[in-house]
Amino acid sequence: MMMIHRWRRSGEFVRSACKSLSSLRPEHNSMSPSVSGFVNRYESKGKTFQSNAWNDHNRELDLGRNLGMMQQYKSFGSSSASKVQRNPLFSSLEPKDVSYFKEILGDKHVIEDEERLETANTDWMHKYRGSSKLMLLPKNTEEVSQILKYCDSRSLAVVPQGGNTGLVGGSVPVFDEVIINVGLMNEVLSFDEVSGVLVCEAGCILENLATFLDTKGFVMPLDLGAKGSCHIGGNVSTNAGGLRLIRYGSLHGTVLGLEAVTANGNVLDMLGTLRKDNTGYDLKHLFIGSEGSLGIVTKVSILTQPKMSSVNLAFIACKDFLSCQKLLVEAKRNLGEILSAFEFLDNNSMDLVLNHLDGVRNPVSSSENFYILIETTGSGETYDREKLEAFLLKSLEQGLVSDGVIAQDINQASSFWRIREGITEALQKAGACYKYDLSLPVEEIYNIVNDLRGRLGKIHITALSPNNFKTEDCNQIMHMVQVTWQMLWDMVTLETLLGLIEPYVYEWTSKHRGSISAEHGLGVMKANEIFYSKSPETVALMVSIKKLLDPKGILNPYKVLPHSFFSP
Amino acid sequence: MMMIHRWRRSGEFVRSACKSLSSLRPEHNSMSPSVSGFVNRYESKGKTFQSNAWNDHNRELDLGRNLGMMQQYKSFGSSSASKVQRNPLFSSLEPKDVSYFKEILGDKHVIEDEERLETANTDWMHKYRGSSKLMLLPKNTEEVSQILKYCDSRSLAVVPQGGNTGLVGGSVPVFDEVIINVGLMNEVLSFDEVSGVLVCEAGCILENLATFLDTKGFVMPLDLGAKGSCHIGGNVSTNAGGLRLIRYGSLHGTVLGLEAVTANGNVLDMLGTLRKDNTGYDLKHLFIGSEGSLGIVTKVSILTQPKMSSVNLAFIACKDFLSCQKLLVEAKRNLGEILSAFEFLDNNSMDLVLNHLDGVRNPVSSSENFYILIETTGSGETYDREKLEAFLLKSLEQGLVSDGVIAQDINQASSFWRIREGITEALQKAGACYKYDLSLPVEEIYNIVNDLRGRLGKIHITALSPNNFKTEDCNQIMHMVQVTWQMLWDMVTLETLLGLIEPYVYEWTSKHRGSISAEHGLGVMKANEIFYSKSPETVALMVSIKKLLDPKGILNPYKVLPHSFFSP
Repeated sequence: MMMIHRWRRSGEFVRSACKSLSSLRPEHNSMSPSVSGFVNRYESKGKTFQSNAWNDHNRELDLGRNLGMMQQYKSFGSSSASKVQRNPLFSSLEPKDVSYFKEILGDKHVIEDEERLETANTDWMHKYRGSSKLMLLPKNTEEVSQILKYCDSRSLAVVPQGGNTGLVGGSVPVFDEVIINVGLMNEVLSFDEVSGVLVCEAGCILENLATFLDTKGFVMPLDLGAKGSCHIGGNVSTNAGGLRLIRYGSLHGTVLGLEAVTANGNVLDMLGTLRKDNTGYDLKHLFIGSEGSLGIVTKVSILTQPKMSSVNLAFIACKDFLSCQKLLVEAKRNLGEILSAFEFLDNNSMDLVLNHLDGVRNPVSSSENFYILIETTGSGETYDREKLEAFLLKSLEQGLVSDGVIAQDINQASSFWRIREGITEALQKAGACYKYDLSLPVEEIYNIVNDLRGRLGKIHITALSPNNFKTEDCNQIMHMVQVTWQMLWDMVTLETLLGLIEPYVYEWTSKHRGSISAEHGLGVMKANEIFYSKSPETVALMVSIKKLLDPKGILNPYKVLPHSFFSP
Repeated sequence: MMMIHRWRRSGEFVRSACKSLSSLRPEHNSMSPSVSGFVNRYESKGKTFQSNAWNDHNRELDLGRNLGMMQQYKSFGSSSASKVQRNPLFSSLEPKDVSYFKEILGDKHVIEDEERLETANTDWMHKYRGSSKLMLLPKNTEEVSQILKYCDSRSLAVVPQGGNTGLVGGSVPVFDEVIINVGLMNEVLSFDEVSGVLVCEAGCILENLATFLDTKGFVMPLDLGAKGSCHIGGNVSTNAGGLRLIRYGSLHGTVLGLEAVTANGNVLDMLGTLRKDNTGYDLKHLFIGSEGSLGIVTKVSILTQPKMSSVNLAFIACKDFLSCQKLLVEAKRNLGEILSAFEFLDNNSMDLVLNHLDGVRNPVSSSENFYILIETTGSGETYDREKLEAFLLKSLEQGLVSDGVIAQDINQASSFWRIREGITEALQKAGACYKYDLSLPVEEIYNIVNDLRGRLGKIHITALSPNNFKTEDCNQIMHMVQVTWQMLWDMVTLETLLGLIEPYVYEWTSKHRGSISAEHGLGVMKANEIFYSKSPETVALMVSIKKLLDPKGILNPYKVLPHSFFSP
């Protein structure tokens, strides 16, 4: 029995990658009072259309009209830039507002302290910073409802905040929005040991839930590097993926119910605990992944899983990408229900790790073009291991695999994962890096790398290192690729380089029916890029639904939907 | 290797159950031109509120107002009945309409033939019958779009129809709605053998897709008794469950994308093929399970699964319900990833089967209070069997199980399933039966049976037989109970009896946070019962979303939402 999962720290690894990015590009890390440099650069692709007043208080919801706007938007191509501007229809905070909030929440839970606000205004990458003057700490759903009802009537914009661990600026104010942090709503409400259904408040920290469940012999269906800080409500609102998406599917499948408060203070009780319920529209899905722009999630009902004890890990070398694809198909077929990870790296990534990290060595004797990690997780130690061994032997005979080794103990397994998870650390040491949280069909994930290599070769890119070809879940494939480029950028200005990468990478992704945000959401960072992944008609419907649930647009403004919809 | 799945025919068994119901209650099976007797009875619970004009063409969408209506609705309790009436704001079909449709579809695909219309107007249980004079057979999305755009402009109501295999009257007209049958849209558009993603048109028959996939070594993530007729588009629109829900989760998890046409003819391209895509609201979920009331699904992208070859089946006896619950927890923990079914029957059901079906015998030597079937499905024949044996031995030692036997061959496995699946057939032979498609927390599923036994005991109920405690998926539990009552009803009028069962059973379910429709949807049958499973605020939002996407309410009217919303 190897408890390998303990040594996997994908989350921390993303964290350090992002720190690297900001420290290496100080000129783009300015803490502007609105949105920081990185975002502005995204905007410089520029599409303009004016006067589509979000907040004109015209309640007429006309899909046709929205669609017309979308098509207009699409047709503009790359014209002049449009920066985010504060929506002037929002009120500014007044002393009477603060007094009201103190009345309903108590003085202690109305935060005006500058130091605490500084933290709440800044995302943890220090990439986005708002200028909110007020943070509210409701203790229950009723208080959230009262706050929102008041803010809606006063046209005060708000930002729902959980652990503030997002990567796209979704959880901090852009301007002076009132911060509503649900951290005090952190009770486990019930746990059913027969069904494994956990019901809890939105402010529960993921790790605390995991610790609670551990004593019961269960695990959460999601696990993230940020688990020590992130809240389950935030996880649900951003449809967080993480390590176990992998095994147990997305939150659209594991969240059985939730309670949410809409902009006008209405409490929607959808807190079912059943897996089967076909009574009308399943509206909870609107709130999963909408990044707090349709309502504030206050309670969550989620299906947890019994702990599995047997974990095995193999490190394998493959000659070409086609063999990697075939191996994946065979692994799903042969390992079936115990396959829990299938991760991929190329020889560029391997060289990078070998060159920059201490004490790392290639587990297989010969150098090869591609390497794969295959992990199984199950309940039968001997069975699972024999199954993995038999599969690898067969793959070797079939020529899909040129070499491979199975970890014999925890240390060896840990050293295998160290290679895969060390790529980002190695990139940090080698130079600046760009991460693109893309999702592409499996057969395309290496084509984009080859295409970009060709494109960027001209300007002295020294290493182009794709990694994180995740595919997991017993019988399912993840289609996720995070492509990381590491480059020598003293030869070329950052703007020139970026001009070669963007919008090319988004266009490429869109053309191949990929997603420009596999895991991290759109937030403020990619709100304007939504058309690369969604059709104009679909975005039009999103806007209509936003207007239906939040007519004044007070909930997490400037996020998810194109900024232009928020500017009068 | 036992291919037991072939012998499981839950679908057919539901079919015969329903036939039994209608044949035994002729006075309630009248083929009225509107909705049949069974539905009227449901309505006799009666709640009234008038003049909530659905079709007043007032586009103002005010959640607050809808909610007010909901609360008013709730407060009326059981006052006088309100029958469904044809919405007079809908136009009636005119010759010019037929001419227009012939122009865009061709004469051959505009059906006015009485015999064909008779079939299309009638659901397969012969419980619901409409009086449509026209069926349209579009060949592609563009034609569906043209049809809807025209119908919307003319205020002609429509019924989307697939295989017409629903159980709640959702797929046939209530009055004279134009039938749009997508059966000609039946092409497989693509299949990716690496990812297992299938993209196809909505009119593909489920069994044809299964046959196609079989040649590739894959299976659909859902399987139904009606698979020879039902369409994948209908499956998605009704969020069909079926045998494999079980193993691979609901369609909210396995449908990766879809294309749908809304009432005004807008085509929404949400046909992604990725498992990870966090770019804004995931709107496809609105169309999964909304029974065609928000749009017509035209294409589906779905994740299919590699075939598994090893199946094992055990038949087990338990002393009490608490042991059954404990056994379930242990099975999930010990069998983990290979557990594929955990089904339950009590001694009443066993006696019923033994008394009424030929050639059935109890596989375990002693009579016991409860019986459980445990099925495993995996990829390692010897491994899986040894695992199941070890688990059963341990459970016997722990006293959770009093007796048990593992099927040694296909015939024996088939005979085990015969008991479980023969219950409905046995009920048919014993007398009339009521089926309630309820979903309840596991710990409650036998309490409702005991409560009802007490309640109905007074009126000479001879057998009260719960069955179908489904729990499946490797680590998940289904919370599904279909409670079937078989009774001697010559002692009592049907109305008296029904008065004792309803609304009691719905109130009980609601009180224990269950669902009044686990699998079959609401259709026209349970549209008025929605408040037993959804809060007024949630129904208010459903109504607002319906009005947003279908302002005139032409799409599948009188279904899903309370009828009153459709009547001026």
